[in-house]
Amino acid sequence: MTEVEAKKPQESLQDRLAQVVELLHRHRIVEDLAHRQSQEGQHQDLVENLVHRQNLVELQRKLEALHPADIAHILEALPLDDRLTVWQLVKSDRDGDILLEVSDAVRETLIADMDDHELLAAAKEMDADELADLAAELPRDVVHELMETLDAQQRERVRSALSYEEDQVGALMDFEMVTIREDVSLEVVLRYLRRLKELPGHTDKLFVVDYDGVLKGVLPIKRLLVNDPERHVAEVMASDPVTFHPDEDAYEAAQAFERYDLVSTPVVDKSGKLIGRLTIDEMVDLIREESESEVLNMAGLREEEDIFASVWKSLRNRWAWLAVNLITAFVASRVIGLFDGSIEKLVALAALMPIVAGIGGNSGNQTITMIVRAMALDQMGTGNSARLLRKEAGVGMLNGLIWGGVIGVVVYWLYGSWSLGVVMTAAMTLNLLLAALMGVLIPVTLARMGRDPALGASVMITAVTDSGGFFIFLGLATIFLL
Amino acid sequence: MTEVEAKKPQESLQDRLAQVVELLHRHRIVEDLAHRQSQEGQHQDLVENLVHRQNLVELQRKLEALHPADIAHILEALPLDDRLTVWQLVKSDRDGDILLEVSDAVRETLIADMDDHELLAAAKEMDADELADLAAELPRDVVHELMETLDAQQRERVRSALSYEEDQVGALMDFEMVTIREDVSLEVVLRYLRRLKELPGHTDKLFVVDYDGVLKGVLPIKRLLVNDPERHVAEVMASDPVTFHPDEDAYEAAQAFERYDLVSTPVVDKSGKLIGRLTIDEMVDLIREESESEVLNMAGLREEEDIFASVWKSLRNRWAWLAVNLITAFVASRVIGLFDGSIEKLVALAALMPIVAGIGGNSGNQTITMIVRAMALDQMGTGNSARLLRKEAGVGMLNGLIWGGVIGVVVYWLYGSWSLGVVMTAAMTLNLLLAALMGVLIPVTLARMGRDPALGASVMITAVTDSGGFFIFLGLATIFLL
Repeated sequence: MTEVEAKKPQESLQDRLAQVVELLHRHRIVEDLAHRQSQEGQHQDLVENLVHRQNLVELQRKLEALHPADIAHILEALPLDDRLTVWQLVKSDRDGDILLEVSDAVRETLIADMDDHELLAAAKEMDADELADLAAELPRDVVHELMETLDAQQRERVRSALSYEEDQVGALMDFEMVTIREDVSLEVVLRYLRRLKELPGHTDKLFVVDYDGVLKGVLPIKRLLVNDPERHVAEVMASDPVTFHPDEDAYEAAQAFERYDLVSTPVVDKSGKLIGRLTIDEMVDLIREESESEVLNMAGLREEEDIFASVWKSLRNRWAWLAVNLITAFVASRVIGLFDGSIEKLVALAALMPIVAGIGGNSGNQTITMIVRAMALDQMGTGNSARLLRKEAGVGMLNGLIWGGVIGVVVYWLYGSWSLGVVMTAAMTLNLLLAALMGVLIPVTLARMGRDPALGASVMITAVTDSGGFFIFLGLATIFLL
Repeated sequence: MTEVEAKKPQESLQDRLAQVVELLHRHRIVEDLAHRQSQEGQHQDLVENLVHRQNLVELQRKLEALHPADIAHILEALPLDDRLTVWQLVKSDRDGDILLEVSDAVRETLIADMDDHELLAAAKEMDADELADLAAELPRDVVHELMETLDAQQRERVRSALSYEEDQVGALMDFEMVTIREDVSLEVVLRYLRRLKELPGHTDKLFVVDYDGVLKGVLPIKRLLVNDPERHVAEVMASDPVTFHPDEDAYEAAQAFERYDLVSTPVVDKSGKLIGRLTIDEMVDLIREESESEVLNMAGLREEEDIFASVWKSLRNRWAWLAVNLITAFVASRVIGLFDGSIEKLVALAALMPIVAGIGGNSGNQTITMIVRAMALDQMGTGNSARLLRKEAGVGMLNGLIWGGVIGVVVYWLYGSWSLGVVMTAAMTLNLLLAALMGVLIPVTLARMGRDPALGASVMITAVTDSGGFFIFLGLATIFLL
């Protein structure tokens, strides 16, 4: 895909979005007017048409001046009808760039609006790795036709990229590498680069390979520039660079980029042959996506949602966790049901029990968030669990005694029963201990089972602290108060 | 700071951590043994000492082979006593690099373990921007002494970096720029670079300035390499590059890096004079931090916590949100208290009310997470709120009718009262509508007030859906069932 130089944004994203919305709005008013008048008669048609067209032309000019990433952002921020109006106005030779920039959910709506011919035209300019990114969402016959137009090497690359899982290095690598031999001088390298006319984006190092394509090292551009041109590549190159295999976990690669401040790295196969390249821009996107899916998972959303998605789509995205929540709430309700008799005798219990459950849920969520984060950052080593458990139990115990004590006093003051206050304090302390215990054990157990520790962590801990809190409080009350 | 070339990690971070822990463990066993025997007598002292020392030497050798970022990671994953043992073993000339890599919470524990002399030595090698990062956490007299050792330009730079807020571009920029003039040929530029011997990290472009230091454009290294050396900088440079002002929001700069796939950008003052540089590595750290603080804020944790922090430190980090939660839980409890009489007459209400509150909380959290994310991504434009409100209300209404209907049937089956079932369905639907309404309004209002919309969003929405849910359910029940 041709590279677009980013220009200084003279106005903020919000401003640009507001301008586009304003132009769209004007366009709609004229359209409405034209529509109403065409029902009343045909006069003034010409004038309206002109104004109408003028608004669209202005909008189009505005859009043309924007970077594809900015257009993508505007498309994401517009409701479906406005989004498609803007999409129609964008020059077709930029469709591909923009499709690659928008979120999956929005891309779906744009692709649905394009016919096969437009899709083919948009995809024609793409590199193999970009095609592979898009392939899953394109109609089957379009993909088929596209593959026909590719040469053998490109087709092989698309196939290879498609053969990896979304979270593997192989799915994120590109193939735009500049390779050189180790037995030439830097002068020769410089001349070779000049003949290339253009270098791929994020080229901070050249890859040194032998005649079989096996990676021998990398030549950072920095070293190429500061060293004597008479020197040979072999003397100047770094012979032990960070590399990745295509079947490695992409998120671990992203963490390595972050840790070692990398811009690009070679990807090699088992035999050491160079097959692709990872770049920081893909890694940044991945870091962003990972953090977001953590937030979404904890809130019980399955995936990123287009904020203007239809009600039905949103329902489908959200129903699974709601259903889980409903079941756990139902269990908690049955726990309360066990103590019907106690509540009938002492109705204050009904009013106080949500406090015990709520504080446990909040504290448990704090613990589980901490542990999930430590796991994501690889800080949970062997033999740490017991120590963390002790610490979290300590925090829970103290919080229980302090806050439980406060609430106990308030309860005594409200209901005039010191024994009810003591039961309240004891129940809160025990539930906070339970929250600490489960806040450590749930993610640790999920991880041992090979599951994502963030997934549903919040729903699960709340389920435990709700049912547990009700049981502990009502149980203690039944034993000691009735 | 000297640059360290990242080497291929032959083993995973987890493996390396495990090895260090193993060596530490062996060291501790010998130490224990030595301690016990020194109480019994002095025999075998020599042997123990040798074994003891051998373990430490092995550990030290292991650490020396690691990248500072990896040592930082190991330090973060170790409990305090082990952490300080490892910290003592690290060669003092790497202290600075490692201090810059560890998290704030862990850095504090390391600095507390160093005397002024060690701190001065560690900070001596740092660049102005790195010093500024560290200055806030160093003892006042160390900072004072450090400033004395700097030359006037460096001191000015540290002062300037310290004068900006943490979230401003000025606090994150560095000063390692390569500047050139526009009226020279590329050949001259190439020769100039060779004389520099070393280029700063992340140099993907050179900054073109006039004699007053005003930025005229940037010369991407890519263009320098592929163009004819006879051509002049002015012909080849990009004259309208992305730039930032030091008082701009750093997070917006990070988003621009992400959007335009940048590696470095110049920072200029109001008059267009070049004063610094932003690089992708700082931006990646910022993106990571922003996403993390979103997760932490939603869970009610004030800041990043060292997982091995003391119980007291953890308490301080968490108590604020727990207190808020306690107050909201108390309010919910008082709402229930209003309906004492109803619950006494129909104790089933006590068992069912947490279901109404729970489903509202879960659904509200889904909505608020969506909206907070859309805001973080700048997708909430003018006039979108009403449309989003309608959509979320639709989702809430449908969820209420569907899930509320299911639960209504279950309640009828359990308690044999169809009117109780209908009240349950109605209460769930109304509470889901309330959740949708507040899920949109809370973050929108917080943002209008200039507050972070993520801050406490989860606690607030849960407070509303709890109290609201109890009120709606118990209110409807009191009116229609009693």
